[in-house]
Amino acid sequence: MAGFFISFEGLDGSGKTTQLRRLETFLIGRGREVVSLRQPGGTALGDRIRAVVLDSKTEAAVGKIAPMTEMALMFADRAQAIAEVILPALEAGKIVLCDRWTDSTEAYQGGGRGLGAEKVLEMHHAVCGDLWPALTILLLPDLQASLKRARRRNDRHIAAVGTDENRFETEGDGFYGRIHAVYTAIGYREKARVVTIGDGNLDEVEAAVRSAVLQRI
Amino acid sequence: MAGFFISFEGLDGSGKTTQLRRLETFLIGRGREVVSLRQPGGTALGDRIRAVVLDSKTEAAVGKIAPMTEMALMFADRAQAIAEVILPALEAGKIVLCDRWTDSTEAYQGGGRGLGAEKVLEMHHAVCGDLWPALTILLLPDLQASLKRARRRNDRHIAAVGTDENRFETEGDGFYGRIHAVYTAIGYREKARVVTIGDGNLDEVEAAVRSAVLQRI
Repeated sequence: MAGFFISFEGLDGSGKTTQLRRLETFLIGRGREVVSLRQPGGTALGDRIRAVVLDSKTEAAVGKIAPMTEMALMFADRAQAIAEVILPALEAGKIVLCDRWTDSTEAYQGGGRGLGAEKVLEMHHAVCGDLWPALTILLLPDLQASLKRARRRNDRHIAAVGTDENRFETEGDGFYGRIHAVYTAIGYREKARVVTIGDGNLDEVEAAVRSAVLQRI
Repeated sequence: MAGFFISFEGLDGSGKTTQLRRLETFLIGRGREVVSLRQPGGTALGDRIRAVVLDSKTEAAVGKIAPMTEMALMFADRAQAIAEVILPALEAGKIVLCDRWTDSTEAYQGGGRGLGAEKVLEMHHAVCGDLWPALTILLLPDLQASLKRARRRNDRHIAAVGTDENRFETEGDGFYGRIHAVYTAIGYREKARVVTIGDGNLDEVEAAVRSAVLQRI
């Protein structure tokens, strides 16, 4: 049985993490072995990188992180996840569910930060070779609804853990508008790989995710 | 007055840091503004990355760092140095002296770790565009003499600071032999940019460095 690599994409607050968990439960219930991880993070080294790039207090300590630095750190994290988690799991025939992949880098650093898609895809090729998910679930609900949900969740995270993951949240709505536009474009460009799912309640989206997956595994 | 970008390359213990300092003193004495930095490091964020990739205790804490991760971290550091230090200095007409640049990545990660030159140069292009030093001083003394000096120095560093920069030192001589071979090849391939200086005492090497620089600035 061959492994199968699925990524979930979308803005913070799009519901991708919830849907990833639901799919994980469903697949395990069908007897599949599933490995789930998030990006950045998913390895011990990746979690260190995640703390640097997501914590809004980082820049108070080390100064402004250049957009290109941010992009290279995302790929450092991804390289570690590939070597340590993803390739071994795929080689063992498992299903890998990854919360964000290079589409996020294209959307956030390429679009949001303005580096452009070309540099992101060039670095992807250098670091990841031709490793892309066989299926990408792109959750693309209304932009304003996503933003509201993301900000509410971050407030809870600060209350619970102390550190925030807020560095991206300090960006204005234009930043998120650019990300939303790039995601939309990726959905059109990568029709063979990406299934775009728009507005819907949790159960409706879950059904659409499940249908997309069952057509492929 | 235009800026001028010079890198120093070579194995640990090749004497490049000493020669960089001597050149810096010489140039300042001639009334030039000089900015010196090292890679990895040279920025606050870069020093965090340096601590992760060079400290031999890192892997005890977070597991083995994949070669590709190491390479991407080097470029994250480089991206930050470009944005924060190098470009502003060059734009202000200063001379930039950089202790290591992408030749180090090609030698250590491309050659030593076996990733190959192509991926290194591809990532360089994605992250750094066409930014290369106008002059690279490659110090290439006898391999065994370099190794002996590097190990002696690291022992002193541990005694003085507590942390080590020893993660690369645990590699065997074959690792350093591959690096030496790649450096040699770069010297032949990049004749327009790279001046290779072999064995010599400190003053002889200093004279050769100075001569190479004065022909160009």
